[in-house]
Amino acid sequence: MTLEFWYEFASTYSYPAAWRVDRLAAAQGVKVVWRPFLLGPLFHKQQGLSDSPFNVVEPKGRYMWRDMERICQQEMLPFRRPSVFPRRTLLAARLALVGARRGWIASFSRGVYTANFGLNRDISDPAVLAQIVKEVGGNPVPDFAEADTAAIKAELRANGEEAEAKGLFGAPSFVCLRATGEGSELFWGNDRLEQAIAWAAAH
Amino acid sequence: MTLEFWYEFASTYSYPAAWRVDRLAAAQGVKVVWRPFLLGPLFHKQQGLSDSPFNVVEPKGRYMWRDMERICQQEMLPFRRPSVFPRRTLLAARLALVGARRGWIASFSRGVYTANFGLNRDISDPAVLAQIVKEVGGNPVPDFAEADTAAIKAELRANGEEAEAKGLFGAPSFVCLRATGEGSELFWGNDRLEQAIAWAAAH
Repeated sequence: MTLEFWYEFASTYSYPAAWRVDRLAAAQGVKVVWRPFLLGPLFHKQQGLSDSPFNVVEPKGRYMWRDMERICQQEMLPFRRPSVFPRRTLLAARLALVGARRGWIASFSRGVYTANFGLNRDISDPAVLAQIVKEVGGNPVPDFAEADTAAIKAELRANGEEAEAKGLFGAPSFVCLRATGEGSELFWGNDRLEQAIAWAAAH
Repeated sequence: MTLEFWYEFASTYSYPAAWRVDRLAAAQGVKVVWRPFLLGPLFHKQQGLSDSPFNVVEPKGRYMWRDMERICQQEMLPFRRPSVFPRRTLLAARLALVGARRGWIASFSRGVYTANFGLNRDISDPAVLAQIVKEVGGNPVPDFAEADTAAIKAELRANGEEAEAKGLFGAPSFVCLRATGEGSELFWGNDRLEQAIAWAAAH
């Protein structure tokens, strides 16, 4: 009954997923756990990439941006192709983990996605992130201080290691935990969200 | 009102797409044109790959095989992970083009996919392909002879060039042709088939 939502703030398809996951899961009585992680190190380790595959493979990138445009139109989400892609997401991811402790991880994460892909704002800029923290009820000074602690840094690294251990290779990914704790079921991509939720609801 | 179905016989996700496309398109009054092509040269040119990305990136491959298992179960299609992957598809693709001239390209192509991914048969083996040709009403001796002609070879090469020109980078892909002939709309992946058909029906 629990679905882990694994996301990276630079991941384009995680944007619509972030805006859909809580609503769709709630309708099926499925609990969502928001799991931010950094995809870059995984891409580098698994695929030897130092840049987004959408930048490396030009036709794939061209398709993705058109696809995002179609998806956002359908989901009635604002969309602007970011002038910088991918943006650095380390601080945003650490702040999301602070938000998990404070109860605003979901609203903060949705705000970061809209800033990045809906408004073309620089989500690596602390001022942009501070504004989002405030909007979701956080308190930038202590929250930024906490984001810089060894505990939060270690938590984000541990998330990355857990993502790899769970078989992830991209974002968004959804992991359905089994009640028994024996293994888990992995789904990859915004277009698999409904299937992942149905799986979580049925198991 | 016309949807081009671009497929490669070694492409796993093209298997369920091949079994779904005609049925779903017919329900929406959309005409399907089957367009076989070789994805290997495109992968090599665009991504520098000499093997399937599912073999190159291990976690991606692991996920794909599990995903195929789930999809085939849902679509009630037989599934067996092939003992050789990817198999050579040059002869099968040329025979499909012969089938386009004879009226059996769709049934032949579905048969090849089931042989490869449902029954783990060697679809690079002429004997296996001859059996499929017979099953769909073809005549192996003249059909194999035609598959070996310069015209068919050139047609398959031209398909590959057209695929690239249309922005393809994977299979299955669906291209919605515009009535005006100005550009076209591209969809990638079995999971986008419904969306592609809806687009073709609406434009």
